[in-house]
Amino acid sequence: MLKPSTLSGFMELLPAPQIAFNKMLDSVRAVFESFGAVPLDTPVMERAEILLAKAGGETEKQIYAFEKGDTKLALRFDLTVPLAKYVALHAGQLRFPFKRYHIGKVYRGERAQKGRFREFYQCDIDVVGVDTLSLGYDAEIVAVACKAVAALGLGDFVVNISNRKIVSGLLEMAEISDAARPEVMHALDKMPKVGLDETRSWLGEIGLNPRQIAMLAETMARRGAGPAVLDELARLPGQTALFRTGVEELTRVVGLAGSMGVPAANLAVNLGIVRGLDYYTGTVYETFATAAPEFGSIMSGGRYDDLAGFYTTQKLPGVGISLGLTRLFDLMTNAGLVKADAATSARLTVIPMDPADPRICAAAAALSGQVRQAGIAVDVLWDEGKSFKSRLGSAAKTGVPFVAIIGADEAGDGTASVKNMATGEQARVPLSAVRGAIA
Amino acid sequence: MLKPSTLSGFMELLPAPQIAFNKMLDSVRAVFESFGAVPLDTPVMERAEILLAKAGGETEKQIYAFEKGDTKLALRFDLTVPLAKYVALHAGQLRFPFKRYHIGKVYRGERAQKGRFREFYQCDIDVVGVDTLSLGYDAEIVAVACKAVAALGLGDFVVNISNRKIVSGLLEMAEISDAARPEVMHALDKMPKVGLDETRSWLGEIGLNPRQIAMLAETMARRGAGPAVLDELARLPGQTALFRTGVEELTRVVGLAGSMGVPAANLAVNLGIVRGLDYYTGTVYETFATAAPEFGSIMSGGRYDDLAGFYTTQKLPGVGISLGLTRLFDLMTNAGLVKADAATSARLTVIPMDPADPRICAAAAALSGQVRQAGIAVDVLWDEGKSFKSRLGSAAKTGVPFVAIIGADEAGDGTASVKNMATGEQARVPLSAVRGAIA
Repeated sequence: MLKPSTLSGFMELLPAPQIAFNKMLDSVRAVFESFGAVPLDTPVMERAEILLAKAGGETEKQIYAFEKGDTKLALRFDLTVPLAKYVALHAGQLRFPFKRYHIGKVYRGERAQKGRFREFYQCDIDVVGVDTLSLGYDAEIVAVACKAVAALGLGDFVVNISNRKIVSGLLEMAEISDAARPEVMHALDKMPKVGLDETRSWLGEIGLNPRQIAMLAETMARRGAGPAVLDELARLPGQTALFRTGVEELTRVVGLAGSMGVPAANLAVNLGIVRGLDYYTGTVYETFATAAPEFGSIMSGGRYDDLAGFYTTQKLPGVGISLGLTRLFDLMTNAGLVKADAATSARLTVIPMDPADPRICAAAAALSGQVRQAGIAVDVLWDEGKSFKSRLGSAAKTGVPFVAIIGADEAGDGTASVKNMATGEQARVPLSAVRGAIA
Repeated sequence: MLKPSTLSGFMELLPAPQIAFNKMLDSVRAVFESFGAVPLDTPVMERAEILLAKAGGETEKQIYAFEKGDTKLALRFDLTVPLAKYVALHAGQLRFPFKRYHIGKVYRGERAQKGRFREFYQCDIDVVGVDTLSLGYDAEIVAVACKAVAALGLGDFVVNISNRKIVSGLLEMAEISDAARPEVMHALDKMPKVGLDETRSWLGEIGLNPRQIAMLAETMARRGAGPAVLDELARLPGQTALFRTGVEELTRVVGLAGSMGVPAANLAVNLGIVRGLDYYTGTVYETFATAAPEFGSIMSGGRYDDLAGFYTTQKLPGVGISLGLTRLFDLMTNAGLVKADAATSARLTVIPMDPADPRICAAAAALSGQVRQAGIAVDVLWDEGKSFKSRLGSAAKTGVPFVAIIGADEAGDGTASVKNMATGEQARVPLSAVRGAIA
């Protein structure tokens, strides 16, 4: 006999939390579809060289790679590389801008530690254009993030938005040397974590002078409702073309998002959002739950210039955002924010009092068929070994809203006793009236 | 630059067929949930020894196995072994009978050939009891299969049902030696494929006498509407207890399925359904599309005595059925049975005539936000590079039912020109009336 176990770093849920998790997945999917995104579902496995084209360093070490026959294979570690491959491979058959969502599992052989998962769901939405892509889509991504996060039950939240051209422009305006730029960007990227003071001294150690430090750190620390911050930025002296473009783009995106109905309370311009060094080239997003900043960014993404440069010469700019649901669900569970109170998808549980009585069973079968036909989910507790009382208790524990009991009397006159589990009320109704009684 | 490609044996769909595929997955899921089954979502990866406990021979060769660090890992090759592990591991926290569904990808490194997939979706539903499990669940599985297959758009179909105790009883009644049984069972298992005559001569080669051959081959060839065949079986002379139990169980299951509303035309008793040699111990199911018998069984399963004997001493009998959707979708596509006519999930596509005009864009943004708020999916073609006409053509190609056009006139008076793409009719309505116009 083997001791059953589940690999560490892999989430495996009991029914009630699984139902809650799936509700979250479904609501994210519904939001993505409400923006007209088409679903994508690529293989979990790809040729290793396809996946490794972009990876490197830490990512490469984390990849699950192996051989089958003489093919080197690997499991996807994100949904962006598969998107790049898909678009490059099928470009001739796609309509551009290509707006797709993809909800699926990805794999990273992280060192096992609390809160780190080796298999986790990503929920991605991206819009990819050929050569150009309108900023209208950058605004849509703000609206997507607002609707998706609002549906997760996290309470208040803010989508923080910036534009990489603003920080790049600032580096020009502060006359940072090309050699120092990566390190300065890195320091600015960490500012939301370490704070303004530490960033100031870090920039000093890199060798920036007080004027440069003041200009960068203080500008980058700006955040707040869109119009106020954008006005300040527009008035900053000595602007380069890049900086101006960044401010103009950000202004346009914030304005359109507002027109789309994004509440002002859910969107903040925050120049501290930099998001790493290489990939993003324009708009960048991070989303924080007001009551749980320790969760980190819940939904992040941005605008990139060139999705699939490894696979095609076509220039494919895109904008997108991603939600890591497994980690978030785990954090929410630990914080008591997941309401996992239903252990069944059924609205009605039918209990034949004596499951050995053929007439009672036939009536229970008929009732379950009729109610399902009306589109309502029904469970039946057929088990003969357990008492009626223990089965009723078992049904109650699942949180099912209604129970229909069929005993000899009910089977005799074609009725069922329907119990409302919330109120305890019970009424005997004809079988054909049960679906109405539980509607 | 790398040439992008997808591994052979891995399905990767374009948007329109992907939407059609997801509709099929969703309808199967809705059917499973309508029976009160809870969702299960186990890791794609398990410790190799967990997965290999049951596998052997051909299955073991097909498994994707590899090492990460010093752990031997493997990808699941079905959803039954993960279910067994899950139930054994979490038994103390589950409610029994445990009725779960699982829709997910499984992996088999099959030799690449047309119609064979290395990654494919299985859609499984099983009910697992402790020590005993009522035949009521065997009947529910018939009802599940009927509803699920009916939703797939395959036209007429028949769920074929039998009971392994009948064939085992027949072997007793025909006095087949223990040594010959496996080979005889194998021959009977193949009878639906090779036909009655060939099975007769095969049984002769095994060494059966004419009386044994007549008894087995002719009884096993029986099939038809439940009551008629069951009556014949009940009248067969020389019945053993095992045979009688099999006929009684089958009679009860067919009767309850009828009470549940399963149409007589969709269910046939077919003693030729044997389903392999080892696993199943009672009811067995196979489902065939009337117009496409060459698809083979679409949804198959049965009753087993002991789900998790490798992982626990608890006796866990179960009954379930499985649909391999990837292969079926491929067969249906090749047969022209998949209606993949929508390349968008949107009901409305908004086209701002001049996407450089801020007033037009603001109106398009506001319209899209309002209509989404009403729960309707909206796409917007923001792209500045393309003419209005080419964008309208692009929208038409997706099969979207409505297009809302916003030009300078519309932006000026707060209206949109709404075009019904099926009829070509176009009407100018206030923005707030658009959601009503496309309902």
